[in-house]
Amino acid sequence: MASGKSEEISAPKSRVILQQCLSAKLMVEPKSDASEAKYTQIGRGLVVYICFLKDASEDILDKMVKSILSACLSEDDNGKLVSVLDLPGDVLIIPQATMGGNLKGKKMQYHRNVNKETGLNLYTKFIQMCEDVMMKSDKCKERQTVVRYGTYGNRQVFSMDTNGPYSHVLEF
Amino acid sequence: MASGKSEEISAPKSRVILQQCLSAKLMVEPKSDASEAKYTQIGRGLVVYICFLKDASEDILDKMVKSILSACLSEDDNGKLVSVLDLPGDVLIIPQATMGGNLKGKKMQYHRNVNKETGLNLYTKFIQMCEDVMMKSDKCKERQTVVRYGTYGNRQVFSMDTNGPYSHVLEF
Repeated sequence: MASGKSEEISAPKSRVILQQCLSAKLMVEPKSDASEAKYTQIGRGLVVYICFLKDASEDILDKMVKSILSACLSEDDNGKLVSVLDLPGDVLIIPQATMGGNLKGKKMQYHRNVNKETGLNLYTKFIQMCEDVMMKSDKCKERQTVVRYGTYGNRQVFSMDTNGPYSHVLEF
Repeated sequence: MASGKSEEISAPKSRVILQQCLSAKLMVEPKSDASEAKYTQIGRGLVVYICFLKDASEDILDKMVKSILSACLSEDDNGKLVSVLDLPGDVLIIPQATMGGNLKGKKMQYHRNVNKETGLNLYTKFIQMCEDVMMKSDKCKERQTVVRYGTYGNRQVFSMDTNGPYSHVLEF
């Protein structure tokens, strides 16, 4: 950056919250005059809340996907922490632009967020890359684990059941 | 700090995740030979995941409590964002030491976390201060809103139902 401020150089380009779950259910299409609300759901696995920040670009996606899917954050039947690929478990990706917020007085400000068009593009690619990695895993294929995801820009109506969320915040 | 590194001076001393919920249920005592598992629950309000980091001390608690309880992160019946005190809503505080983790390879490391004794002390005081603020609110008294919390150091078995978590990560 022209200003030369060191905090701008190292500012994160994305932020994720990871939580392990036993099951989770997410609305992907709200109720309309024509139809009921539509939901997607997962069984045991990982809930990934995701937010892209200013200057985020596709070059961070590869590291994000590898880190998230291979991080040992899921408890297997023996209580050992393994990756969601090794569990193997499902993945639910939830877009959460609010995670870029900074508290200013009593209100949140979202100046750090990436613009919506870029955010949607990165979100879509991130999902595809997660699906690709899972498709290549023999364990995941055998257990028919799934990647599910919310609709970008929508309200994320959902419910979750966990035996310990084991929450982690990661920045890339 | 003696090393003079600027990142150490500005390192956060606590991290919280805030999510609005319609209801949430948390185990506060696991099942034993003598009794069934015990749970606590809240209705509409705010879920506060909390983690204290290295060098955290009581002097950060006042700002934390005020910021969290007065931040406009809860949607009222008209869709307007108000604080949990103004909603008024319940508060569920969940200790999450894992939120101090950094990913190193495939494993999480927790070098940034405060020691357990200090963490428990700060956690206990944080809860008391939240209860005190809520007790002083006429709206909260009238609606009999509650502050509930998890058992420090336990596995946080829980379930949550939300019409949009509206997740925020704050550091103090």
